[in-house]
Amino acid sequence: MLGRYVLTTKHPLRIAIAGLGTVGSATLDMLEKNRDLICQRAGRNLQVVAVAARDKTKHLQKIKNGIQWFDNACDLAPLPTVDVVVVLIGGDDGIALKTTETALRNGKSVVTANKALMATHGVRLSEIAEETGAQLMFEAAVAGEIPVIKTLREASAGDRITSVQGILNGTCNYILTRIGEDGLTFEEALKEAQNKGFAEAEPSLDVDGHDTAHKLALLAALAFGIPPSFNDVSVEGIRNVSSLDIHFANELGYKIKLLGTARLTDRGLEKYVGPCLVPKHSVLANTNDVLNAVSIQIDTLDPITLTGRGAGGKPTASAVVADLMDLARGSSVLPFGIPAAMLKNVSPALCEEKLSSWYIRMRVFDKPGALTSVSTIFSQKSISIESVIQRGQPGLESVPVIIKTHEVSESAMRWALAKISKLETIQETPCAFRVEEPAHEDCPDSPNRMCQRAPEGMGKPFNLG
Amino acid sequence: MLGRYVLTTKHPLRIAIAGLGTVGSATLDMLEKNRDLICQRAGRNLQVVAVAARDKTKHLQKIKNGIQWFDNACDLAPLPTVDVVVVLIGGDDGIALKTTETALRNGKSVVTANKALMATHGVRLSEIAEETGAQLMFEAAVAGEIPVIKTLREASAGDRITSVQGILNGTCNYILTRIGEDGLTFEEALKEAQNKGFAEAEPSLDVDGHDTAHKLALLAALAFGIPPSFNDVSVEGIRNVSSLDIHFANELGYKIKLLGTARLTDRGLEKYVGPCLVPKHSVLANTNDVLNAVSIQIDTLDPITLTGRGAGGKPTASAVVADLMDLARGSSVLPFGIPAAMLKNVSPALCEEKLSSWYIRMRVFDKPGALTSVSTIFSQKSISIESVIQRGQPGLESVPVIIKTHEVSESAMRWALAKISKLETIQETPCAFRVEEPAHEDCPDSPNRMCQRAPEGMGKPFNLG
Repeated sequence: MLGRYVLTTKHPLRIAIAGLGTVGSATLDMLEKNRDLICQRAGRNLQVVAVAARDKTKHLQKIKNGIQWFDNACDLAPLPTVDVVVVLIGGDDGIALKTTETALRNGKSVVTANKALMATHGVRLSEIAEETGAQLMFEAAVAGEIPVIKTLREASAGDRITSVQGILNGTCNYILTRIGEDGLTFEEALKEAQNKGFAEAEPSLDVDGHDTAHKLALLAALAFGIPPSFNDVSVEGIRNVSSLDIHFANELGYKIKLLGTARLTDRGLEKYVGPCLVPKHSVLANTNDVLNAVSIQIDTLDPITLTGRGAGGKPTASAVVADLMDLARGSSVLPFGIPAAMLKNVSPALCEEKLSSWYIRMRVFDKPGALTSVSTIFSQKSISIESVIQRGQPGLESVPVIIKTHEVSESAMRWALAKISKLETIQETPCAFRVEEPAHEDCPDSPNRMCQRAPEGMGKPFNLG
Repeated sequence: MLGRYVLTTKHPLRIAIAGLGTVGSATLDMLEKNRDLICQRAGRNLQVVAVAARDKTKHLQKIKNGIQWFDNACDLAPLPTVDVVVVLIGGDDGIALKTTETALRNGKSVVTANKALMATHGVRLSEIAEETGAQLMFEAAVAGEIPVIKTLREASAGDRITSVQGILNGTCNYILTRIGEDGLTFEEALKEAQNKGFAEAEPSLDVDGHDTAHKLALLAALAFGIPPSFNDVSVEGIRNVSSLDIHFANELGYKIKLLGTARLTDRGLEKYVGPCLVPKHSVLANTNDVLNAVSIQIDTLDPITLTGRGAGGKPTASAVVADLMDLARGSSVLPFGIPAAMLKNVSPALCEEKLSSWYIRMRVFDKPGALTSVSTIFSQKSISIESVIQRGQPGLESVPVIIKTHEVSESAMRWALAKISKLETIQETPCAFRVEEPAHEDCPDSPNRMCQRAPEGMGKPFNLG
């Protein structure tokens, strides 16, 4: 069947690296430091023959003899000495796009960590790769060292996947961990993350959930055979999560994480990014600091969950090098697992039909019966309440009230929240986060619920008045 | 570079399945049920052309037209109509070995779930595969649906791995979960597992740790480039774990899991299987029931941890089918990641030098100063104690005493335990389990330790008298 495995006769895989930022430098470093190991395991040498970056003076020390230097990454792809171009430049167009496209059109494979590029132009780039027989690999674009692309594209390739859900942004996870651990405000935790180099000076891409949406778009494409797209993802960031929420969530038996979720239901495909409550003994709940985690639900099986470091030079370089080694061994998998022409949209779940249970925090003026009006609004949409926590503090004019609902449609919940916001007894706009219950009862939890609970199976709304 | 991806012109991958037990039947079923999906993602059809099992009458319904039946699996390999033989027969020799060897010698690839076979004859089978250019795949042999072989062999192929550690036996994990949750004895939990079909009538292979050792041997081979071997694994099962241990471990901030560990240290390679205490907020601690988990530690990075269902028909079939799809796409990776001739033993860590902290449970007669003799023995080997829990119960002649030590060499600990067993003040042989502390401080824990604790950094033994 396959040719005999001969180590010595194979010529090296000749690599050009476009971009020498954190990941580019770490990749160059790893290829150098682990050279013997990589050669042994890939069956041939991986040789960097060219690099391109903006400022040569900054990188002089890294550039060994025999490596060609280019100021413009676009010059790498046409080189006859190059087999594969590693695109480690940011942005969803400009040089990153041009370099990738030129390389693929020249039949040269591309390995990239650029999720925005893949989420935006993935289908077209995939088509070009198929036409020319080049490979397009992007393990490094999602969740750093965690092999989630490989798992979806190869390890679970024969399975019907029903959902992919994960903590995909290390910056947000770090901020939420710090808010929970030390009671910091969002702003304080963000500042700390920036000081430690975990967050950008312009943090919006991370904290407002867009980075998670890009990654989710790629995972959903692989899981469900759909074209990657992030414009149809409902996105909410973490700016509204307070230490109060983490405290009360804990009391209810949960932690709060920024999750990206793509789930195939009878009602259509749900894709959303937002802070969610997850059972506190689940793997997702125990993924802290800058770590990422991804859970893949297959049919009726237990989910496969992968955790590890999702960003940073070394973890991302590890994924880049793994892709390069796959190329070196002659592996051939389509970018999204199936031909680009076969990627087909699945109808989205309508907002009216998307079911979740919700956590709601509101501030209510401390007057007798102040909650009755909230209860009335809930009952108008048959929203059934599971738990309520209210603790009066003497001297304050308003108190936080926490409500956890049973499953309810998103549209009903949005309607109720809009109504509640306008009540005179409510001090500020309520916060509402989804509660993600485990698909299987493999997370036994015995939270010490110091709160009222609706009786099991109760159909009508719980009376708050 | 690579040929254009054309779906239609490729002939089907022709498969023979040897063995129609739980996994064989589930594989046949999955290939049938997910046929379209599999064809789309593998780029060609996966067609079962022959099966072999002992009792044809039991399987008549599964055998569709066009599938040849054989009573003897050895007849499958020579068939000219077969590209790959799926070996789902147990045992480390006999028919399983003969079928695998014959197939590989005939240049036909083999996919197997047989860990004992691979752990025992892996090197020789790998050599044959290299000679004939056949592929030998065994993702299904370790941790069911969790793609740990693929992760070690491909995703982490460029990394220097320093340890692999995991919960690799679902039966043991189920039993430990049940002992912990409902205070069952080992025997009661085993009986329950047997009734539910999670444990064999002859449970020794599972509960005495040998199955974990087989799997560990394979993971260590892939992680460290060593020949698989399980005779050099120090193995202890879970028969001595009681609900008392799980209770006290919890009080100290830990859970008890049966772990297989292979760790490269300055002192050499450590390979052991045994009940261990793991921090209660770690992913391993929260892997319950029949789930498995594997943690891969790379250099100084955070570990990658993978969890999921480790056994059973469907999860294992999922891994078998993934291997078949890799073959269908022409993927070519050596069984142990590198040529068999390059697999080299690493010197084992000497028992004297293997450092861990330990949990010890003993029953001490309830007399004043009864612990002094224990303390004296510890001090003779400079074993330093971190925590002690002792709770007298009126009316009982002996009380349980729990000790957690600081790091100490295994030989010192074994010496001390042997001495302690012989003390007149001790009622029965003490139980001792390793404590696995996280490599990184990513598992903050604030256990409510209701016990004495040695001051931080204390060098000399804690006085128990």
